[in-house]
Amino acid sequence: MERRSFLGASLAAAVGLAGRPLETLSSPRPVRDDGILRLGSNENSLGPSSAARRAVIDGLAEANRYTHRVAADLRGRLAEHHGVPERSVVLGNGSAEILQMATQAVASPGGRLVVADPTFEQVYGYGEPWGLERVKVPLTSSYAHDIGRMRDAARRAGGPVLAYICNPNNPTGTLTLSDEVEGWIREDESTLFLVDEAYFEYVRDARYRSALPLAMSRPNVVVVRTFSKIYGLAGLRLGYALAQPETAARIDAYAADSNLNIMGLVAARASVGDEAHLSRSLRSNEEARAVTYAALDELGLERLPSHTNFVMHRVPGDVRDYIRRMAEHQVQVGRPFPPMTGHNRLSFGRPAEMERFAETLREFRRNGWV
Amino acid sequence: MERRSFLGASLAAAVGLAGRPLETLSSPRPVRDDGILRLGSNENSLGPSSAARRAVIDGLAEANRYTHRVAADLRGRLAEHHGVPERSVVLGNGSAEILQMATQAVASPGGRLVVADPTFEQVYGYGEPWGLERVKVPLTSSYAHDIGRMRDAARRAGGPVLAYICNPNNPTGTLTLSDEVEGWIREDESTLFLVDEAYFEYVRDARYRSALPLAMSRPNVVVVRTFSKIYGLAGLRLGYALAQPETAARIDAYAADSNLNIMGLVAARASVGDEAHLSRSLRSNEEARAVTYAALDELGLERLPSHTNFVMHRVPGDVRDYIRRMAEHQVQVGRPFPPMTGHNRLSFGRPAEMERFAETLREFRRNGWV
Repeated sequence: MERRSFLGASLAAAVGLAGRPLETLSSPRPVRDDGILRLGSNENSLGPSSAARRAVIDGLAEANRYTHRVAADLRGRLAEHHGVPERSVVLGNGSAEILQMATQAVASPGGRLVVADPTFEQVYGYGEPWGLERVKVPLTSSYAHDIGRMRDAARRAGGPVLAYICNPNNPTGTLTLSDEVEGWIREDESTLFLVDEAYFEYVRDARYRSALPLAMSRPNVVVVRTFSKIYGLAGLRLGYALAQPETAARIDAYAADSNLNIMGLVAARASVGDEAHLSRSLRSNEEARAVTYAALDELGLERLPSHTNFVMHRVPGDVRDYIRRMAEHQVQVGRPFPPMTGHNRLSFGRPAEMERFAETLREFRRNGWV
Repeated sequence: MERRSFLGASLAAAVGLAGRPLETLSSPRPVRDDGILRLGSNENSLGPSSAARRAVIDGLAEANRYTHRVAADLRGRLAEHHGVPERSVVLGNGSAEILQMATQAVASPGGRLVVADPTFEQVYGYGEPWGLERVKVPLTSSYAHDIGRMRDAARRAGGPVLAYICNPNNPTGTLTLSDEVEGWIREDESTLFLVDEAYFEYVRDARYRSALPLAMSRPNVVVVRTFSKIYGLAGLRLGYALAQPETAARIDAYAADSNLNIMGLVAARASVGDEAHLSRSLRSNEEARAVTYAALDELGLERLPSHTNFVMHRVPGDVRDYIRRMAEHQVQVGRPFPPMTGHNRLSFGRPAEMERFAETLREFRRNGWV
C-alpha cells in the first residue's frame, strides 16, 4: 500500500508529507524535551489525542480561512454530546474568554463579583477595568466554597451580581458539594452563577455532579467547560459555555469577532467524546497522583485531597523560595496563590515525570529545604 | 540521507510522520477542494508560507501547553522587525480582539466612537453593549475617510473618543491620503486614533504610508496589523497593535487571559519578514487583480480603485440577489455592505480562480443578471 494514500489525501495535500502507519500516531508523544519538568500550569502532559493531532495537520488546508463554518460544526457536535440545543453552546478562545465575557455581562454601575479566596484569579481580574465591586470570600476550613457567606455577599448588592464557582476549585483541587451549590442556586434567581467545571472529568466522587441540568432549567446559570485539561489542548484555546439560549446570547454579545482558531476547532471536534483518550488521561493522572501522594506522605508534607490533575501541598517557609529552588532544578511548579503562601500547587505530569519530581523533593529534604 | 532526519527531529517527534524533501513544502497548496470558490472574506488564497506550515506541525509538541513563553518570543520578534520597544507590541486573538480591546478602553460614560460609513464593522459592533455613542461619517465621493467631518464629530464629544481609521478601507479597498490622516492626528491630542492597517502590505501608492511613526511619537495613536491577510493566516488568529508602551498597556488591560494560541504564534513567528512569501502573495494578488479588472471592464461594471486584496464593484439591482446567484454557482462573494447595496466586494483569489470567476460573470451577463 502506498504510504501517501494511507493517511488520506487531505493530509498529504495539506502539508505534502508522506504518512507513517496510523499506529505510530496512536500513542501521544512526550512534549518538548528541553529537560524542564512542566508541573506548573495544570496541563495534560500526555498531549492531544492522535485524532486531534491529525485534525491539526488536516486543518492546515484551512489555515488561511476564517472559521465560522467549522465553529458551527463544533457547536453542533457539542450540543449533541451534551444533549442541549445548539443555541445553548457558546464557544470561546479558551474558557478564559468565556469567563471574561460573563464578567463583562455584569459590568454596569453597582455590579458585583463574588468569588472564593483563593480560587482561579481570572474572573476577579476581569472585573478590574470596569470598577466592579469585588468580594472575596475565604474557603471553608475544608477548602470548599463557603456557600453561606458567598450567598450573603451576593444578597447585599444593588446591581447585577456574578457569582463564580470553580468546582473542583483551582488552586486547591478540592470539591464543593453539589448539594450545597445547588441549594444556593435554587433559591437565588437574581445572581448570575458562573460554574467553572474545567476539571469536571477528573472527579470520581458521588457527591459531585455537573451543574448542567440547572443551567438548562434556569436562565441565571452558566456552566463552563474547556478542552485545555483532560483533552490536552491548552495551547489551542478552546473553551465553551452551556446555558439557556437567551443567557448564551447575552454572554456571546461580548465575544471578539472571529474568536475561534481553526486548529482549536478541529482538534476539539476530533476530541469530543473520545473515551479512549479520556480513559488514558484519567488513568495516567491517577497513577501520577498515587506516585505524588506517596512522595508527599513519605516526607510528611500535608496535602489537600485532589479531585483534579493537580494537588495543593504544604511547603515549609515561603513558597516563593520553594518555587525558585525547584526552577533551579529544572522543575516548574505552580505560582504562589495568596493567601495560601505556605502551600504549593503541583500539577500531575506523567507517572514517570512524578517519579523525577519525587526524587527532586527527596533531594530538597536532604538539603533541609522541605 | 534518511528522510526522517531531513525535516528535523522535532517535527518527527511531534506527529510521527516521515518528511518529504523540503521542496515539496515550498509552494503553498491550494486549499480545500470542494468546488467552492471562496472570494468573500479577503483571505489569501495562497495559504500560509511553507515555513508557517512547518511551524504548525512542530507546534503540535506544544499543543497541550499554555503559550506565554512563545508569545514573548513573537513580541520580541515583532519589536525587532518594526524597530520598536517590546512593550509597544500588544498581541491579540486576531486584530479583531485588538479592535475590541481598544473599543473597550473608551467604554465609559460619554464615550464616543467615530467611524467611516461604510468601513469594517467590528469597532462599531463592539461599541454596542457599552452604550457608546456611535457616529458614522459617510466616505467622501472618492471613497476616502471624510477627515474633516470625522474631526468635527470627534471634537463635539464630552467623554473619551475613539476614531477608527481603516486605511486602506474595507470594504471599499480605497485609500485615505496619509497627509490628511496625519494632519488630523497632529492637531488632536485627545482622540484615541485606531489606525487599522490590515491591508498595509498590498499598497503601492506613494501617497500612502504607515501611521507607525506617529504611534511611536504620540500616546493617542495605535496602529493595528494582522497576519490574516498577506501572511495567509486568517484561521490561526494572530493580530497585533503597536503603540507607546503606556498606551499599549492601557489596551492590553482588556485582553482575555491566555488569548494566544500556539499555532497562530508559531506560524506568525515563522512568517514575520518572510519576503519571499510576501512577494509571491503580492505578485499573485496583482495578477488576480488584472484578471478581475479585465473582466469587470469588459462587462462595463464600474469598480473602485483597489489598494488591497479585494475590489468593490458595481452590480445592477440588489446586491443580495447577486450574492445568492453567485452562491448557487459555487462562488462565495462578499456580503452586503450597506449603504453600498449596489456594489459587491470581491476578494482576489489566485489568478486561475479569478479566471473562473470571470467565466461565471460572463454567464451572468448572458443571463441578464449583471
